Amino acid sequence: MANIYPFAGAALQSDNTCKFSVWAPFRQQVALSVIQPEPQIYPMQRDDKGYWHTTIEGLSAGVRYKYILDEATTLPDPASRYQPEGVHGPSEVINPDFEWTDNSWAGLELRDLIIYELHTGTFSQTHDFQGIIDKLGYLRSLGITAIELMPVGQFPGDRNWGYDGVYPFAVQNSYGGVNGLKALVNAAHQHGIAVILDVVYNHLGPEGNYFAQYGPWFTDKYKTPWGPALNFDDAWCDAVRAYYIQNALMWLDEFHIDGLRMDAVHAIWDCGAHHFTAELSALVDALQASSGKKKFLIAEIDLNSPKYITPREKGGYGMHGQWIDEFHHALHSLLTGEVNGYYADFGGLGPMAKSYQDSYVFTGEYSGVRKRHFGVAPLRNDYHQFVVFAQNHDQIGNRMLGDRLTTQLSFEAQKLAAAVVLLSPHIPLLFMGEEYGETRPFQFFTSHSDKDLIAAVTNGRREEFASFAWEGEVPDPQSVETFNNSTLSWHTRTDNAAALMELYRFLIAFRRTRQAMLNTSREGVKVQIPQVEEQLLLVERSGNDDHLLLLFNFSDHAVTYQYTGSGELLKKFDSAAAIWHGPGSTTPDQATTSE
Amino acid sequence: MANIYPFAGAALQSDNTCKFSVWAPFRQQVALSVIQPEPQIYPMQRDDKGYWHTTIEGLSAGVRYKYILDEATTLPDPASRYQPEGVHGPSEVINPDFEWTDNSWAGLELRDLIIYELHTGTFSQTHDFQGIIDKLGYLRSLGITAIELMPVGQFPGDRNWGYDGVYPFAVQNSYGGVNGLKALVNAAHQHGIAVILDVVYNHLGPEGNYFAQYGPWFTDKYKTPWGPALNFDDAWCDAVRAYYIQNALMWLDEFHIDGLRMDAVHAIWDCGAHHFTAELSALVDALQASSGKKKFLIAEIDLNSPKYITPREKGGYGMHGQWIDEFHHALHSLLTGEVNGYYADFGGLGPMAKSYQDSYVFTGEYSGVRKRHFGVAPLRNDYHQFVVFAQNHDQIGNRMLGDRLTTQLSFEAQKLAAAVVLLSPHIPLLFMGEEYGETRPFQFFTSHSDKDLIAAVTNGRREEFASFAWEGEVPDPQSVETFNNSTLSWHTRTDNAAALMELYRFLIAFRRTRQAMLNTSREGVKVQIPQVEEQLLLVERSGNDDHLLLLFNFSDHAVTYQYTGSGELLKKFDSAAAIWHGPGSTTPDQATTSE
Repeated sequence: MANIYPFAGAALQSDNTCKFSVWAPFRQQVALSVIQPEPQIYPMQRDDKGYWHTTIEGLSAGVRYKYILDEATTLPDPASRYQPEGVHGPSEVINPDFEWTDNSWAGLELRDLIIYELHTGTFSQTHDFQGIIDKLGYLRSLGITAIELMPVGQFPGDRNWGYDGVYPFAVQNSYGGVNGLKALVNAAHQHGIAVILDVVYNHLGPEGNYFAQYGPWFTDKYKTPWGPALNFDDAWCDAVRAYYIQNALMWLDEFHIDGLRMDAVHAIWDCGAHHFTAELSALVDALQASSGKKKFLIAEIDLNSPKYITPREKGGYGMHGQWIDEFHHALHSLLTGEVNGYYADFGGLGPMAKSYQDSYVFTGEYSGVRKRHFGVAPLRNDYHQFVVFAQNHDQIGNRMLGDRLTTQLSFEAQKLAAAVVLLSPHIPLLFMGEEYGETRPFQFFTSHSDKDLIAAVTNGRREEFASFAWEGEVPDPQSVETFNNSTLSWHTRTDNAAALMELYRFLIAFRRTRQAMLNTSREGVKVQIPQVEEQLLLVERSGNDDHLLLLFNFSDHAVTYQYTGSGELLKKFDSAAAIWHGPGSTTPDQATTSE
Repeated sequence: MANIYPFAGAALQSDNTCKFSVWAPFRQQVALSVIQPEPQIYPMQRDDKGYWHTTIEGLSAGVRYKYILDEATTLPDPASRYQPEGVHGPSEVINPDFEWTDNSWAGLELRDLIIYELHTGTFSQTHDFQGIIDKLGYLRSLGITAIELMPVGQFPGDRNWGYDGVYPFAVQNSYGGVNGLKALVNAAHQHGIAVILDVVYNHLGPEGNYFAQYGPWFTDKYKTPWGPALNFDDAWCDAVRAYYIQNALMWLDEFHIDGLRMDAVHAIWDCGAHHFTAELSALVDALQASSGKKKFLIAEIDLNSPKYITPREKGGYGMHGQWIDEFHHALHSLLTGEVNGYYADFGGLGPMAKSYQDSYVFTGEYSGVRKRHFGVAPLRNDYHQFVVFAQNHDQIGNRMLGDRLTTQLSFEAQKLAAAVVLLSPHIPLLFMGEEYGETRPFQFFTSHSDKDLIAAVTNGRREEFASFAWEGEVPDPQSVETFNNSTLSWHTRTDNAAALMELYRFLIAFRRTRQAMLNTSREGVKVQIPQVEEQLLLVERSGNDDHLLLLFNFSDHAVTYQYTGSGELLKKFDSAAAIWHGPGSTTPDQATTSE
């Protein structure tokens, strides 16, 4: 394996030297230009795979450098570990040492995840990792077991969702850099909270993207919405694959990250014999075995293809979990009545019931939006391989106004949405602020410096919303106002907010203690629509002699349901109860049904 | 399934009507224009998937027709069953009835195939199916169990390898059309010979290709060497998939074809959840089950990815076999010493030994030609899933002069090549004429009518050979001379030809009767290179208590080999023997080795 994964980047060695390596196979000459503390240029030597190397004595952490390509072009390191002056500035050699105190942390199983997705920049008023550390106790008290950080690779400026990152190995300087992230992971583990990191291996951002000048990072075999595809299967792809594999392993090993959420895995184009995700999952499994700490990969993917999360020995790619946008679309469309844009494939109880039962909504049926038959049923994959949500950064932020369900739904319906997600056999994911009913939007924001790019992003944003026919003005992504508007208010002191937080806390605890809830096998869930016109969804869950009857009332009025099974029914939860700031429960506390 | 596979084409019905259906989802109006016998135009009705339909009374076989798109463009039927006037002319309604007499034929298992690849146009002086029928007795006497026809879909003019076809449902008119092919299949089955048809599902030819005017047949998601990729996974792909699925089933069912050789399967771009080849293989298996006749799919593929030929229940795509070009390249390079172009990855005994043992040469190693690590070992796939050859249409015809091994190698080396292939545990394939040492070339020929295209093909051909640095003038593909030069001479009456044919006959019979030869499991083969400097390859094969020691001497002189095993050795075959027109065998007939 060693020769498949050559090192790239700058790394201090134990013998007081610093090793530099950069891949530039078509360049005739590459040199290291140390800029600070003392400017000096060092020649580099090329190996037979196109990597250029040099090892320098007497350099220490904090050294800033760039590479000079063919004596003409001076650029930062694509594998830079730190960009103290942003995406266009020099790279910095870092000290990877950190005083870890999480040795007793062994990680979490997928089935135990209650994920809280957050954006570091807008989570707190300090806009950094420390702002998250300050809230870990709060999150733990809610029952959250994992935080999921939107991408932290260095991006242009200091306001960005993270998907415009161009230095996947460098932790965003404005967030707190390498040690800021390590401190967060360490603190989270001490709170019993796992950390999932969102990583982007399907494209690189548009600004500060110097990769093409280094070598064949891209291929024109495939087309992506973000430009040429990264080269995962064409000539010279080994170095690209090695780069991303090392990136994944850096987070999971050096940073003690528990799992990766891999962005848009369907856009990692690899039609070769050994799919990149399968190669990576084997190495992640090996790291788990050697470290004794649970590690996992969760795919964001738009293919309804269980292959990605099927074990390698069964012919799959061996990733461990995946997001299901369709669950969201079914729920959102049902709750809001929206059937525009891609919601046209959803609406009504049917898709909601389908996703609750089969995870995917489309398992081979014709999709009017996609204009093709779509998907394969994931019936051999347990429910805990699937992540569901009523909201996430995309589903809120890719709305024109970035508006949340709080501004679209009644309080009763918000509680319904929470219960649908948290009582689902799938893994629940909350989006920051959802638990107290944040009403501020989460909008799309950037802080690019390239004017043409800024205009293109703004126009692209407008075009994107054409099919939704939403009304109003598209917020300016580049404006600092948009960023500030999207920062959490932390207005948690209203009665509704308090009740909502209590409800989340209750449902999470319920989910984590009831045997019927802990059963995530396909046999433990039975979904029905007993009365279509009443908008009632019935879910029976069972496990270990525990049985639960879940009734989700999606109508705007009280509904009578006559249970036809046998035995004694005990009411455990009613979101309409006064305790949850509702109109009052009309369900009897107890009922004995006849045989 | 029914709505995934809507009918396209023209089909006579039992009630004396003819049903027409054509897919043109973006057209506002489509009409049927009957041209013969009586010109008449009929309106068509669109269904919700974009197919246009009409059913006309009183039409019979022989009716010629086109479709009129939006009252402006009149074109042949993409699903035409016959193009009597060539690719630009009208389509013709055919009578599918045929007096089959092959009811007792049940097909052959892959392990029993001895394949003979032929090109209908250049196999005989009549350039048609009848010319093949006339030679079936001869082929059977050689021991051939399957003929493989290069593509027969209607192509421009009457001289073409077949990969420029543009009517995949229409049998080339100059070859004998529908009934000519059925007569060939029927006769082959009566001779105990299976028929494999080469089909092209990865692209359509450049001339007479009107598909884009009908609808979204192509996608710009992927790039192919032949232009835009056919749409197997983008919006509207259902109709494209249905078209090719029906095409495959038409050959296997209506034409009684035994198996398909699918051209360049790696260029069937489908990144969806349900790969086209897996969807097709399930239907082919179902046809085999319902018909009681063995049917199979063999992929030409350049991925070294066992996934394609792994059963669907093990996560594969369920195709049944595949070609191995790498076996050829290893053998060719070893025999000829050529290491230019893509042969640079081969040469010497190592790759030959690797392919003999592991089928693929590259099973994860770095390829200097591909500039990447390449391939996965197919260790769970039996040898009889792989087709090997010393020559085929591509490996001969894609040489600048289309020259065969007969003009490159000594007679002794030709016999060696034959033995390497026929004694291999893989399925052997011969290219027409190889068995008698045909010295005529098999060159690339076309009979396009588009002048720009003719120039482009000629220039493309020249560029293609740049990296090989072959000397001489590239033959003109468009010249009828090139076609005639490539037609078999059938000069079988020389002493060498007779000896060679006898040798093929002997080795085929030996292969089909020895237990060690019949064992195609991975356990039955052990390959060694006992003496590198002597260019000796040693293969031990065993099965059912039968043991064979194969010694392939790739040097230009006699080599002494000291067997170190125990037991009695009996000589069964020596290609140097006088009976094979060789210099005489120097191997003892019998030897007892000490323990």
